[in-house]
Amino acid sequence: MTKLDEKEIIRIFADKLGIADLDDVVLLGKGVVFKTDMLVASTDVPDSMEAWQIARKSIVSCVSDLAAKGVRPHAAMISLGLPENRTRPYVEGLAEGFAIASKEFGVKIVGGDTNKANELVIDCSMVGFASSGKIPTRKGAGPGDFVVVSGMFGLPPAGLAILMQNTVATGAFKKQAAESVLVPKPRQRFGLALAKYFSSSIDSSDGLAISLYELASQSRVNIAIENVPAAEGVEKFAQENGLDAHELVFHGGEEYEIVATIPRSKLKQAMAAARKAGTALHVIGRVQRGAGDVFVGKRLLENRGYVHFRMR
Amino acid sequence: MTKLDEKEIIRIFADKLGIADLDDVVLLGKGVVFKTDMLVASTDVPDSMEAWQIARKSIVSCVSDLAAKGVRPHAAMISLGLPENRTRPYVEGLAEGFAIASKEFGVKIVGGDTNKANELVIDCSMVGFASSGKIPTRKGAGPGDFVVVSGMFGLPPAGLAILMQNTVATGAFKKQAAESVLVPKPRQRFGLALAKYFSSSIDSSDGLAISLYELASQSRVNIAIENVPAAEGVEKFAQENGLDAHELVFHGGEEYEIVATIPRSKLKQAMAAARKAGTALHVIGRVQRGAGDVFVGKRLLENRGYVHFRMR
Repeated sequence: MTKLDEKEIIRIFADKLGIADLDDVVLLGKGVVFKTDMLVASTDVPDSMEAWQIARKSIVSCVSDLAAKGVRPHAAMISLGLPENRTRPYVEGLAEGFAIASKEFGVKIVGGDTNKANELVIDCSMVGFASSGKIPTRKGAGPGDFVVVSGMFGLPPAGLAILMQNTVATGAFKKQAAESVLVPKPRQRFGLALAKYFSSSIDSSDGLAISLYELASQSRVNIAIENVPAAEGVEKFAQENGLDAHELVFHGGEEYEIVATIPRSKLKQAMAAARKAGTALHVIGRVQRGAGDVFVGKRLLENRGYVHFRMR
Repeated sequence: MTKLDEKEIIRIFADKLGIADLDDVVLLGKGVVFKTDMLVASTDVPDSMEAWQIARKSIVSCVSDLAAKGVRPHAAMISLGLPENRTRPYVEGLAEGFAIASKEFGVKIVGGDTNKANELVIDCSMVGFASSGKIPTRKGAGPGDFVVVSGMFGLPPAGLAILMQNTVATGAFKKQAAESVLVPKPRQRFGLALAKYFSSSIDSSDGLAISLYELASQSRVNIAIENVPAAEGVEKFAQENGLDAHELVFHGGEEYEIVATIPRSKLKQAMAAARKAGTALHVIGRVQRGAGDVFVGKRLLENRGYVHFRMR
């Protein structure tokens, strides 16, 4: 029996359930935006992560996906699978992380469900309200649009390497990279201020390459990256450790940046809105006619994501 | 380190997050009703359950909780944790179960999340819209109200005993009891037709005793059960197997009946509405002044639920 990969599994469900539009969030009737995300300890959590950080991170994924659509979360529910050996400090640590995230992202946690499980599993469901009754999808990018991002890439993949492998890293970079994994910062301000200008958008938690390919393929256009958004220090870190910086920037993961396209006619307004909101807006490329390919300079980008923390 | 039970865990989260009203579903702004429920294979699934039945059951829990509040589900999202050894027929079986539930309960499954996990975990999140902008809670029962249920109790606990232990059971009862575990039927029609008459309500998936105590304690009243709602054949099955029928009826679980209270002034209308909807409405007792106790006849009922399928 051949093993199924995640794409095949999603395809089986989407076909059987008649889900035509695969996006991270779903817009229901009455402007209700709905999102769910599951965190599983054995694949999503490095050993050095503390309980409050794990709980907070389970909220970050949902916040980030909603932010990419310009939606402020309204309420969240948490379903917990807890191993038998849970201790009071551990459970209190989780609760503390949820409380921190609730305050940090302005989302009210209204309830949930607790269960006994073989490993820690946290499922976060979130509901928000779309102020204008619509949200950007993955398929609205048009030729001529600018490709923008909310920040630079490569830091969390470097952080993972630092946390889980024997890599050499110096003080500030080491701390910043590790922190980007343990306490990720979704780009809520960026999304809330700028989504109204997006022709398409996605969060980048599956990696920059995958995110660009999603926008390109669902919009049936090509994307040409002209400025590679590498975070400061990533190139040096890669060189010192015999790693590939291109790999860290494009095929890493756990990066809660927003990747979006903005029509040429709206770029100036978007720039002004970003300045006003005190958030960075980086133009990294252009949308072109095409069939769903992504180029970095003249080179075709590989369409693949990152490898999970632990391979089993 | 002492082990925490589920109540203590819920208390830690509720306190830390400031969740005052613990109910199964939550009414958000704009009449949005929100619910989440996690199914974990190692505690919630008997071995003989097929993939489609497991998937369907993960939807049933949410449907049942919404039904108790008179809310028709609008959309659901499914988060899946799948073990590595998943096969295509198994995944297709799960997808089939979701599709069956989607059709059966009129809920559109709009998306979700798939993950690798050590065991099968299915989290279902559901959103519905409250037609009147409000829903019955657990704390509205008043002295004089009638206590009603949507059906009889004891069949699923008997079914569990049949599926998992060496019990003696005859043809029709055996089949019916096993079926009640494998293909549970939430009381959607009952809830949708009658919720407008409820002063308080809850679904009974944690067991009849727990459900009655929840209504009694949250409403700060006593409940007196006069007619024990034992399903046909449960007493005989209990006798033949040296089991306690009272235990099966009150302290079983996995029963997706609705337990509610109806003010005296509305009972006649509710009866008529039940007849019109072709659903049974059983009066089993009365609400009295008190501090949250439940009596069966003159005997104080024990406030405890059922024991999970597998003790680990």
